[in-house]
Amino acid sequence: MAAPLKLGVAGLGTVGAALVALVTRQRGELAARCGRAIEIVAVSARARGKERGLDLTKLQWFADPVALARSPDIDVLVELIGGAGDPARAAVAAALAAGKSVVTANKALLAAHGVKLAALAESKGVALNFEAAAAAAIPIVKTLRDGLAGNRVARLYGILNGTCNYILTKMEQERMPFAECLAEAQRLGYAEADPTFDVEGHDTAQKLAILASLAFGTKVDESAIYVEGISSIQSADLSAADELGYRVKLLGVAVRTGKGIEQRVHPTMVRKDAAIAQVMGVTNAITIDAEGLNPLTLVGPGAGGPATASAVLSDIADIARGLKVAPFGRPTARLAAVRKAPMQRHEGGYYIRLMARDRPGTAATIAKRLAEQDISLESIVQRHDPGEPAVNGKGRPVPVILITYATTEDAVRKALAAVGRDRVISGRPQVIRIEKN
Amino acid sequence: MAAPLKLGVAGLGTVGAALVALVTRQRGELAARCGRAIEIVAVSARARGKERGLDLTKLQWFADPVALARSPDIDVLVELIGGAGDPARAAVAAALAAGKSVVTANKALLAAHGVKLAALAESKGVALNFEAAAAAAIPIVKTLRDGLAGNRVARLYGILNGTCNYILTKMEQERMPFAECLAEAQRLGYAEADPTFDVEGHDTAQKLAILASLAFGTKVDESAIYVEGISSIQSADLSAADELGYRVKLLGVAVRTGKGIEQRVHPTMVRKDAAIAQVMGVTNAITIDAEGLNPLTLVGPGAGGPATASAVLSDIADIARGLKVAPFGRPTARLAAVRKAPMQRHEGGYYIRLMARDRPGTAATIAKRLAEQDISLESIVQRHDPGEPAVNGKGRPVPVILITYATTEDAVRKALAAVGRDRVISGRPQVIRIEKN
Repeated sequence: MAAPLKLGVAGLGTVGAALVALVTRQRGELAARCGRAIEIVAVSARARGKERGLDLTKLQWFADPVALARSPDIDVLVELIGGAGDPARAAVAAALAAGKSVVTANKALLAAHGVKLAALAESKGVALNFEAAAAAAIPIVKTLRDGLAGNRVARLYGILNGTCNYILTKMEQERMPFAECLAEAQRLGYAEADPTFDVEGHDTAQKLAILASLAFGTKVDESAIYVEGISSIQSADLSAADELGYRVKLLGVAVRTGKGIEQRVHPTMVRKDAAIAQVMGVTNAITIDAEGLNPLTLVGPGAGGPATASAVLSDIADIARGLKVAPFGRPTARLAAVRKAPMQRHEGGYYIRLMARDRPGTAATIAKRLAEQDISLESIVQRHDPGEPAVNGKGRPVPVILITYATTEDAVRKALAAVGRDRVISGRPQVIRIEKN
Repeated sequence: MAAPLKLGVAGLGTVGAALVALVTRQRGELAARCGRAIEIVAVSARARGKERGLDLTKLQWFADPVALARSPDIDVLVELIGGAGDPARAAVAAALAAGKSVVTANKALLAAHGVKLAALAESKGVALNFEAAAAAAIPIVKTLRDGLAGNRVARLYGILNGTCNYILTKMEQERMPFAECLAEAQRLGYAEADPTFDVEGHDTAQKLAILASLAFGTKVDESAIYVEGISSIQSADLSAADELGYRVKLLGVAVRTGKGIEQRVHPTMVRKDAAIAQVMGVTNAITIDAEGLNPLTLVGPGAGGPATASAVLSDIADIARGLKVAPFGRPTARLAAVRKAPMQRHEGGYYIRLMARDRPGTAATIAKRLAEQDISLESIVQRHDPGEPAVNGKGRPVPVILITYATTEDAVRKALAAVGRDRVISGRPQVIRIEKN
């Protein structure tokens, strides 16, 4: 049997601790599969004395993860520090520069510096593996990189953030408002104290940037992504969606269009019969449409210590078995710059909810503005809430829900701006894009 | 760029033709991903002159697939002939013996001779890849072999046969009997003229044998699988399942138990909220429960030319990129013999539908026989069909539907044998196992 593969683990948070436990528990299995033992020999973390439920006494300790990365005692750096900046970035770069393979779960780092780091790995002939960086235990990186190596991907879309999906599920199932569901998610540890990064879609965008690169052979480019979060979603939208046969999910979507690659993150109406619409709670899922194939959907745990450690360990096992693939599936020189399809030219159906002032001519005005932009309507529902009393002899604003046939983002924005100028609505219109399945 | 990878394709049916088309269409993409061109240089099929919509004039033609396998002009044999015997077996063995890697979609061959062929590949240091042999475009082989390399799988279960799932979906949605749905499937080309292999569960069993080996590190052993098909399923069972919150699916299930590995193929009641219960029509799906992880479910096209060719091509791309993994995820010497858990000791809940003779004491007799075997009932429903006229002053047999709590196969069989001897039922009892999710 070959010499053991020696790992240095930088970062001992939830994932690091789960990884140490998993490597220990699976020692025999891993050796059988890989033809060599896998051993953690050194670690680095901020606080040495912290209680983690792990026996670290036999491991070398490094206060500085960069020193760990350069240590001649390790073959592979496992970077679980997180964040796009140092020390994560410096440690990964140092390991690659020293000719060591790197396994990382760091989506922020890859979204910001993925191509540069991949080029460095390539020049040194080592691996840079990151299955855990998007959707944790769902093998989506390997599926795009290896499983669909012979296919041309037309579109991928996914639920890539468990926090948002938990909140939307709760809002839908218990008819609770966003703020309450967020608070509940925080109580359960599904959402951070500052939830902005998750609920405003940035976490999803970083993962989407990585997946789009793998799917389309383009350079990772987070800045090419249009991002909109879920904080504006109201229970009324979820009820309306339900009645219309849809569910609302925060999706990351990347599509090959005639105008380039469209990448966007936003609340999305998906038909209830879509595989992705069935995905509830913190679970993640990704659907891939490859040309000439029916869709492929992967559903599973997208976050958490054990799920992330599982993906990290699969990457480590690949290295132990001598497998090495270009990090983004092809040499970095072959990765194209993203030809960004502008969001204004996005085409699709739209759900629009307006609060119309209850006076004669309002519906006609709205319909006229939409018609001016060549927007055709699949349905329009205007409903007086029977329980709602009239105010000062006049009715309160009445919700009007419109579903359009395929149109463009630009047309919708222009039409709604005109409706706004007409002063026939109250508040901002709610707009949710519909994704076909 | 390295020299092109030269393929010999044996078998030009639906899959072979789709592969030739895909390799041609994806030529540029493949070269970019793999760092070398992939070229089909030679083919073999039964009828040379047959119209396939392909230009074969530039390819070497071999009447004998074994001669193709041995040809010094090819690097890789792609075996798409099918069947466990010759010429498929001889061609694969000849290619491996000649030091050529093999890609095959042949489940029957692998279920029967997988371990021997893997050992031969190993001794020659070449690849034997078979992503397409189970569930076509769903990357389940790579997921079990590579994606979950660091995890201990506790259970996997899947819809592995599109024909059966199509029939069960149709029976459920249109309340049509089995025979009619089968005929419809045949009309649409989803079922063979002789449907036995599909509807009696043998196709599912072959795929399950391969997946269980990858999941549990055991030798492929189709004979260890308990197999039951769907031809006994009646519309009444699907309606009852629906009312009870279940759906009926033909599943292949492999579970690690204290008594060994339990492998079985049979109609199964799954709760409607299970991911796998949502899978309709010819679509396939597999759920994997790994220890410490929430379930992972892969859903996608499990058959057909393009889907199978996609998986075959991903295996070819792995070879072109120099990736080589032991065929069953570990050296054949490390594959354990299956310790077969006997079906009689299977534990789980059961759905039982009896046609009880309509006379006093019948329910009491049935309840007594179940109690004698320590079987507890979760529910019991006995229903007179209001539209059913009485016959000769006596009622016709009445359906009684029982749902048991977890019990054993042995207890259920003994109880039903006793009920049979009591002559209180008419016809054979219907028994469907319940799978927890």
